[in-house]
Amino acid sequence: MEEEIRKDFLELMALMEKGDIQAFKEKAYECLPVDIAEGLEEVEDSAHVIKLFRMLPKDISSDVFSYMTSEQQQLIAESATNAELKALVDDMFMDDTVDFLEEMPANVVKKVLQNADENTRAVINQFLNYPENSAGSLMTIEYVDLHDYFTVRKAMDYIRRTGIDKETVYTCYVIDDQRKLVGQVSLRKLIVAPESTYIRDIMDTNIISASTTDDQEEIADDFRRYDLTSIAVCDKENRLVGIITIDDIVDVIQEENTEDIKKMAAIIPSDEEYMKTSVMNLVAHRLPWLLLLMISATFTSTIITHFEQLLASAVMLTAFIPMLMDSAGNSGSQTSVTVIRNMALGEVELRDWFKVLAKEIGVAVVSGAALAAVNMLRMMIFTDAGLLVSATVSVTLLCTVIIAMIVGCLLPMGAKKLGFDPAVMASPMITTIVDACALLIYFMIATIILGL
Amino acid sequence: MEEEIRKDFLELMALMEKGDIQAFKEKAYECLPVDIAEGLEEVEDSAHVIKLFRMLPKDISSDVFSYMTSEQQQLIAESATNAELKALVDDMFMDDTVDFLEEMPANVVKKVLQNADENTRAVINQFLNYPENSAGSLMTIEYVDLHDYFTVRKAMDYIRRTGIDKETVYTCYVIDDQRKLVGQVSLRKLIVAPESTYIRDIMDTNIISASTTDDQEEIADDFRRYDLTSIAVCDKENRLVGIITIDDIVDVIQEENTEDIKKMAAIIPSDEEYMKTSVMNLVAHRLPWLLLLMISATFTSTIITHFEQLLASAVMLTAFIPMLMDSAGNSGSQTSVTVIRNMALGEVELRDWFKVLAKEIGVAVVSGAALAAVNMLRMMIFTDAGLLVSATVSVTLLCTVIIAMIVGCLLPMGAKKLGFDPAVMASPMITTIVDACALLIYFMIATIILGL
Repeated sequence: MEEEIRKDFLELMALMEKGDIQAFKEKAYECLPVDIAEGLEEVEDSAHVIKLFRMLPKDISSDVFSYMTSEQQQLIAESATNAELKALVDDMFMDDTVDFLEEMPANVVKKVLQNADENTRAVINQFLNYPENSAGSLMTIEYVDLHDYFTVRKAMDYIRRTGIDKETVYTCYVIDDQRKLVGQVSLRKLIVAPESTYIRDIMDTNIISASTTDDQEEIADDFRRYDLTSIAVCDKENRLVGIITIDDIVDVIQEENTEDIKKMAAIIPSDEEYMKTSVMNLVAHRLPWLLLLMISATFTSTIITHFEQLLASAVMLTAFIPMLMDSAGNSGSQTSVTVIRNMALGEVELRDWFKVLAKEIGVAVVSGAALAAVNMLRMMIFTDAGLLVSATVSVTLLCTVIIAMIVGCLLPMGAKKLGFDPAVMASPMITTIVDACALLIYFMIATIILGL
Repeated sequence: MEEEIRKDFLELMALMEKGDIQAFKEKAYECLPVDIAEGLEEVEDSAHVIKLFRMLPKDISSDVFSYMTSEQQQLIAESATNAELKALVDDMFMDDTVDFLEEMPANVVKKVLQNADENTRAVINQFLNYPENSAGSLMTIEYVDLHDYFTVRKAMDYIRRTGIDKETVYTCYVIDDQRKLVGQVSLRKLIVAPESTYIRDIMDTNIISASTTDDQEEIADDFRRYDLTSIAVCDKENRLVGIITIDDIVDVIQEENTEDIKKMAAIIPSDEEYMKTSVMNLVAHRLPWLLLLMISATFTSTIITHFEQLLASAVMLTAFIPMLMDSAGNSGSQTSVTVIRNMALGEVELRDWFKVLAKEIGVAVVSGAALAAVNMLRMMIFTDAGLLVSATVSVTLLCTVIIAMIVGCLLPMGAKKLGFDPAVMASPMITTIVDACALLIYFMIATIILGL
């Protein structure tokens, strides 16, 4: 598959270099826009990029453009004539135009705005002002709006006439004279309804809609929950201002997942593509957490220093510190990641906290006991640690696993309760906290069992 | 929102108890099926669940059923008469029927199959045999199939007549006399085309399709890449056998993300809902990794035991072991999770390995140096460790961060190269390996700097 796509693109490049315009166009129609855009990514010579883009048939070039990287979009925009730029923006869906402009330097934005007609310019300016990750910043204006007094015949005529430029025609939104959203009707319903039926008689009024200020994560949840393929976006006065379609939501879902995964690994999330991010930029997103966690970890040094006497009299105890800390960290991470993910998916609610805690304590007791038993056997058979040291380590293991799972359960839920992002309370944070607990427990139990 | 949904459901319950059938039906139409199903989840009394379900209007009950939990589905199926069960299965989409049956015990499956007509029975049996997570197990048979010799008029008639029972009518699939897939055409194109046009003249032949044995992850990638809302699924002979729609793909994407997140936290993934999973089942998915990691961690004990003399002569060194191990683990996790996620999203390919490694080494050197500098300052100012011990710890920190990031980069890529799932090479695994490295480096550097 992959290989085939690359081969197609290389053929396209060859036809461009040969200057065989007819064959080039035919080949271009055989390729899919996203594949052409991805092929272009690997072309180093910017003159080639510009030349190939200009040779593309007009009806696919805006599609290709919307899939291109920001760098190459900028290249094209800067080299385009005013007329070409206007044609490009006219052809693109508004959401793609806004995505493109958000990444452009001021001079390109200015050039685009100067060449757009007044109406488009006003809309672009408005869209650029919606906060990032809001419904407003995701939506597009190419929707089908019907009035409730339309007949099906009139609606179908309207769709036939204007539908070609819409992002979707499969769900049509019904508005009143103040442009307030009053319902929606699917194209499926329209094509089976008698032509003289009024839209108001077949439209669905019990619909899910979004507000421009809604967070994209909430919108994605609605799409998942109600199996939507598009959603209406209204302003504060419930006037229809745009729609969001499922293709953008799929990207949002992946982005949100990536963000959560990064947070769980103590990385400050960013939208940038890894391969294009500079080393210093990567450092900026990782070092703060590393520093914070390192400084928190000095607490463990304090504990060890405090028990230095004890360790000096039983140096062997030191040998098991890493294993105890790792086991505590791993079991704490398992619990915290489980809780965080289930909260993100809406499977666990805060009000379930007691049930979750009870369950996790159950898991902790069973797992901890199993680990302790295996460790006891292992130490007695394979080391010369002796019964007392083995017992000290094993009992500590049991206790720390239980504490780690309790911490791993309560911290993310507490964070959520306080309005923080629970994903931050994942492995690294839990590990640091749980390490300190593990050490304290270890030394306390050693003091008791070994009588030091 | 949430509260409103609950209120609606409680009203529905009240109307059921009052026995006001008319008002109950009206209210039921006001609720969305998924919300009714979710409301039912919290009804403890199974008699109430059955009663409410039976009172639902026939045209929404199958929708509600497909959103219910397996436990409640089983309850309904067991209490239903043969005629009711047949009606239910006839109304459901095939993919929902198969999802439902996959979770049912043998007696329920038998009851359903006995009450299905011969055709449906054959299809169900075939679908139940597709491997889990394959396109075959996801697809449904309610698609619109057109012939290329149809005119647009005939196609529209066919859609109007049969479209109501289809999962989607917005993309129609074109087949030849052997049912081989030859193209597709969107409803949008059909409604603007002149009625006498032949389908073959307007259909798209350059289409993305899937095979029944394709893995669901690949299919989800195609949906994302090509912004699809449905895809045709063909058998080995390229005969059209089903379609997959975007709503199921959205669920697949979430599932796959959850699976990756669990693997990264050393949990063996399972499909079961957390709140319904027993403690022993949770243990079964976590203990194997905890045991394996604990046993691997004993390697660190061996290292410490080996350097026991050195530690005895400088007990203070012990105090910094946890901090060094945590920092190594955290930086290794950051890198491995970044690499794993970017490979999963297709942003990093194996052939980029050298670029990635170079970038990560860059990040490691800068981050490591910063951490080491901060640590040096901290130790000199706030502890009485002295210059030499502080230098030992700081140099170790620099070296371990570099090694941790190299390991965190190469292991997941190596795993992928060997055909293993890279997600397993995340934090816990990396931490265990990197801990051992950190200790070795620490003792070696201590030997050199402190001259022990």
